[in-house]
Amino acid sequence: MEKKIFIPAEPDDLGFGTAAGTADQRIINRDGTSNVIKKGLPIFRPYEIYIKLITMPWGKFLVLIFISYLIANFLFASLYMALGKNALMGASTRDFWSEFQDAFFFSSQTISTLGFARISPSGLLPSAVAAIESLIGLLIFALATGLLYGRFSRPVAKILYSEWALISPYQDISGLMFRIANLRSTELIDVEVVITYSQLEMHEGSQIRRYYPLTLERKKVPILSMTWTVVHPIDADSPLYGKQKADFDKSSMEIMVLVKAFDDTFSQNVHSRFSYKEHELITGAKFIPVLNHTPRGTITINLAKISEYSLIDLPGNNNQEKAV
Amino acid sequence: MEKKIFIPAEPDDLGFGTAAGTADQRIINRDGTSNVIKKGLPIFRPYEIYIKLITMPWGKFLVLIFISYLIANFLFASLYMALGKNALMGASTRDFWSEFQDAFFFSSQTISTLGFARISPSGLLPSAVAAIESLIGLLIFALATGLLYGRFSRPVAKILYSEWALISPYQDISGLMFRIANLRSTELIDVEVVITYSQLEMHEGSQIRRYYPLTLERKKVPILSMTWTVVHPIDADSPLYGKQKADFDKSSMEIMVLVKAFDDTFSQNVHSRFSYKEHELITGAKFIPVLNHTPRGTITINLAKISEYSLIDLPGNNNQEKAV
Amino acid sequence: MEKKIFIPAEPDDLGFGTAAGTADQRIINRDGTSNVIKKGLPIFRPYEIYIKLITMPWGKFLVLIFISYLIANFLFASLYMALGKNALMGASTRDFWSEFQDAFFFSSQTISTLGFARISPSGLLPSAVAAIESLIGLLIFALATGLLYGRFSRPVAKILYSEWALISPYQDISGLMFRIANLRSTELIDVEVVITYSQLEMHEGSQIRRYYPLTLERKKVPILSMTWTVVHPIDADSPLYGKQKADFDKSSMEIMVLVKAFDDTFSQNVHSRFSYKEHELITGAKFIPVLNHTPRGTITINLAKISEYSLIDLPGNNNQEKAV
Amino acid sequence: MEKKIFIPAEPDDLGFGTAAGTADQRIINRDGTSNVIKKGLPIFRPYEIYIKLITMPWGKFLVLIFISYLIANFLFASLYMALGKNALMGASTRDFWSEFQDAFFFSSQTISTLGFARISPSGLLPSAVAAIESLIGLLIFALATGLLYGRFSRPVAKILYSEWALISPYQDISGLMFRIANLRSTELIDVEVVITYSQLEMHEGSQIRRYYPLTLERKKVPILSMTWTVVHPIDADSPLYGKQKADFDKSSMEIMVLVKAFDDTFSQNVHSRFSYKEHELITGAKFIPVLNHTPRGTITINLAKISEYSLIDLPGNNNQEKAV
Repeated sequence: MEKKIFIPAEPDDLGFGTAAGTADQRIINRDGTSNVIKKGLPIFRPYEIYIKLITMPWGKFLVLIFISYLIANFLFASLYMALGKNALMGASTRDFWSEFQDAFFFSSQTISTLGFARISPSGLLPSAVAAIESLIGLLIFALATGLLYGRFSRPVAKILYSEWALISPYQDISGLMFRIANLRSTELIDVEVVITYSQLEMHEGSQIRRYYPLTLERKKVPILSMTWTVVHPIDADSPLYGKQKADFDKSSMEIMVLVKAFDDTFSQNVHSRFSYKEHELITGAKFIPVLNHTPRGTITINLAKISEYSLIDLPGNNNQEKAV
Repeated sequence: MEKKIFIPAEPDDLGFGTAAGTADQRIINRDGTSNVIKKGLPIFRPYEIYIKLITMPWGKFLVLIFISYLIANFLFASLYMALGKNALMGASTRDFWSEFQDAFFFSSQTISTLGFARISPSGLLPSAVAAIESLIGLLIFALATGLLYGRFSRPVAKILYSEWALISPYQDISGLMFRIANLRSTELIDVEVVITYSQLEMHEGSQIRRYYPLTLERKKVPILSMTWTVVHPIDADSPLYGKQKADFDKSSMEIMVLVKAFDDTFSQNVHSRFSYKEHELITGAKFIPVLNHTPRGTITINLAKISEYSLIDLPGNNNQEKAV
Repeated sequence: MEKKIFIPAEPDDLGFGTAAGTADQRIINRDGTSNVIKKGLPIFRPYEIYIKLITMPWGKFLVLIFISYLIANFLFASLYMALGKNALMGASTRDFWSEFQDAFFFSSQTISTLGFARISPSGLLPSAVAAIESLIGLLIFALATGLLYGRFSRPVAKILYSEWALISPYQDISGLMFRIANLRSTELIDVEVVITYSQLEMHEGSQIRRYYPLTLERKKVPILSMTWTVVHPIDADSPLYGKQKADFDKSSMEIMVLVKAFDDTFSQNVHSRFSYKEHELITGAKFIPVLNHTPRGTITINLAKISEYSLIDLPGNNNQEKAV
Repeated sequence: MEKKIFIPAEPDDLGFGTAAGTADQRIINRDGTSNVIKKGLPIFRPYEIYIKLITMPWGKFLVLIFISYLIANFLFASLYMALGKNALMGASTRDFWSEFQDAFFFSSQTISTLGFARISPSGLLPSAVAAIESLIGLLIFALATGLLYGRFSRPVAKILYSEWALISPYQDISGLMFRIANLRSTELIDVEVVITYSQLEMHEGSQIRRYYPLTLERKKVPILSMTWTVVHPIDADSPLYGKQKADFDKSSMEIMVLVKAFDDTFSQNVHSRFSYKEHELITGAKFIPVLNHTPRGTITINLAKISEYSLIDLPGNNNQEKAV
């Protein structure tokens, strides 16, 4: 249907823009979030509430539920108090504090649909408030527990990346390599890797950041049971071709990695992001194998060694460095 | 498998049909809904109930739940009343109104599985009705709260579109451009844009509406962290080629945009639709950058400025206009 | 990666097998189910329970829940009775029937976590049974209500197909055509159609059923807002080429249609299947338009007319028939 | 976008690594799990809890819930006891055992939000504990029942594989074949098969395991209503070309099968894995048809016969063996 493919002469922005960042700036943080601040957003954003509730830390979430429970009961207890001494049959009438206490716990028994113990509402208005409270309680608790389960069952990929990207010998040239593995015990299916290389360049007199997709030896594996060494062959077409350690350091480069997979236990697509900066790139090194076999033939992989490498000469290069 | 690709000589309908609309008619509304009315539908459409409940405004939804709660309790209260004076043990017998009130609140305590306070059913029939009511209550509340959470957690893309589409210089020709950004704080992955251009044309003596897919400089970005300027290069193959402002106005054109993405927080595919009509197209203008850097190197984007542009001469054209 | 594409000389089975069916046999029923019976299945298939519960008719499902509720309460009531006269404090001791009645309703109040009214368990064993019953009740009701909501919110495509497939003029040849529309008010995105043509043929002396994928003028529309006339152009490569009405009748043909789409409201992929047999194919006819415009410019489609057609001469053919 | 495709000269690892396994080692077990042990994992892996709970056997899961219920009630009962004799109004004060018993059942009635029978909390602290217990109970039960329904409704493909892979005549060469069918009554859509062949080879003096993707006669069927005979044609490009039974036995080969499909009832993608070892490969055999027709024209498939085959001569080969 498309009549012509355009090779963009302008820098390819990948949705990242071309304005030059400072040298030590990272676009993708190591936890996979983007190093971007959005301004000019509307002040009231109801569509963000769910996101916030589902992604906040567990401790914060549980405290939020507990405090909401306290506040709701406090408000309803105040309401029952305001309805007069006879609103709650069986409640203490000794003093304000006892009265409030009984109203508070009556409310808590109503909102959780536990049901009344000694105390019951009396008269039209208190009964109506109690009926409404139990309705609200049912709906709010449904939301809270839906959120609780939603948080618990949310599929999140746990991809382990090697701490370093290496420039290693690859066939008769060299290649950019890093290793990934699945930290979870679930099976990842159709695992696909997309790599974007970014560096500062001079363009019409000013420094801009340019982005290049990197071709991979293989973009996809059907199952990620063990580890996968992702390889970008550095041939003449590669933006990394002919670059030495010093060139990388100068260019404030960033290698951005996007991993896509299907998690077979969650039956959902999952994603993971990572990036390597110039100080996380080792030229002239090779990964040490992590696979092993037990005497009974089972394969074992030692994920603690996923970042381990040994130094090595690159073909047609002298850019060996000392490993840390 | 397919032996031959057919280039349709007939206008391509994209599922929109070819009948000519009036000049000011929009096919896709600015909120993304289609400007289409379906007639001849079956009168009873049970499969629409869920859709209606999940997409109606929040206020309406909550009022609906509250009214249903009232009606259900009213019906069950009437039933308990019909079962005679002794159906509810402990209920008031003073007058009709007190009796009904007690039956009503007994019902509300039963349907919400709160449990009985002073009043309890007595005899076979009242007990059976109460048992059935609590069963119904459990199921209905399960539905209501399922809907509540379903509404709350429904993934909906919040794509911000620039208010105008521009015809700007692009390489040595010109290009149709608009900007999009993600209003949510979630990450959108594999964002894909499909653009269809539609205009009125003469075909065998009568005016019909024709649809053309527009080729894009890039159809997909791996992550939409910042903004993306979508570009259709206006080369000789483009249906926009050689058109001036006046031509667009005459042709009652519409540029229909479909954005597809994967929302990483919801783990779901999301979609967004938008369209530009002739009065939302500015020829001879260029978007003003919205990216910035903080002193510490973080990128900021100002979404309030996503529609801002400056006037500019187009290459080999004179179709500059005055901006509003 | 694949070095060679194999053109299968053997009949392509599409998972349908090649054994010849009888002349009036349908492979895909009009409601989209397959006309296939599986034998040799294991007798105990626990993985089918969920499927059965989620796809059975609503009436059956609700009756099943109600009967299970009765049976569970009957069993637990019997258990309380077996625990002796004093198991339930406050229960009637008048006669067996009153006793059982109280035990039954006590059980119903326990299993629905409604809470006890007049009656409460007394002693270790009755209390333990009640505690276990409420635990079981919570889990079973969770399942039942999960199923209820699961059924209610299950995404099912409601595609309306024209009752007839037509052979109509298409460009300078003829084409197989049928129309589809979305009966729901949701938006269907990326709607794709796959058509397989099947007919009886002689192969090595015996009659077998062969299957051919049919090429389409367009396989996909980005949005199905209105109607889509799906067209298979009958060129020299088509298995329908040169066939007359009588040929179709003799060959016991079946045109199997698979529609795939993404439902934007459910955020889920949906599918629909349909098929046309020889008596549902009209040669020499053309669909009557269903689109219209209101005076205010809105497009209306009349879905009641989706199957309406008018008779017409086919190019280079004489195979016109009388419409019904 | 990609300028060059790399044909890897190094063995293709598919994420499986190239280290040679022992001869009788299986990479994919017959139940679809990988025969891999991961070491070096962090000790505390909270992200594994959900996976464990959703995939453990049903019996274990239900026992876990029951035991947690006992422990929670035991802990809360101890707490109520610690709050003194008057904490629970109406509870027995006869002896420690009766007291504890009442506290235990009071707790069970609170945590399940059943509501109090004879006993109710008295005083600030006991009331507060009860209020917190009902809050915790609501959240925990929500999780437990969410898990229960999540387990129940989890989409898992039930693909039936023929017990043997055969090398059968295929056109004028031979082909590797096995049969699959859907054990469930749901429809599987867009069923895709990926096959990887693995064998031990000598590489630079040491034995390594190499992996080859196998091309298929057809990779995908639109619907899997009946059975599908998956065929890899053994032509000159196939790694199986020219191999005899003895060659397969020596090479410790494994044919790994990955089936991907969309389950139309669950509206989810499902996967299944399987593998054939050398002793599960029969050379010179042909599957016996499993399709049949009832007198009324309905197709029946006998899944009990999916593995049945008859011996046959291979074209241009003499590698027939005796069937078991």
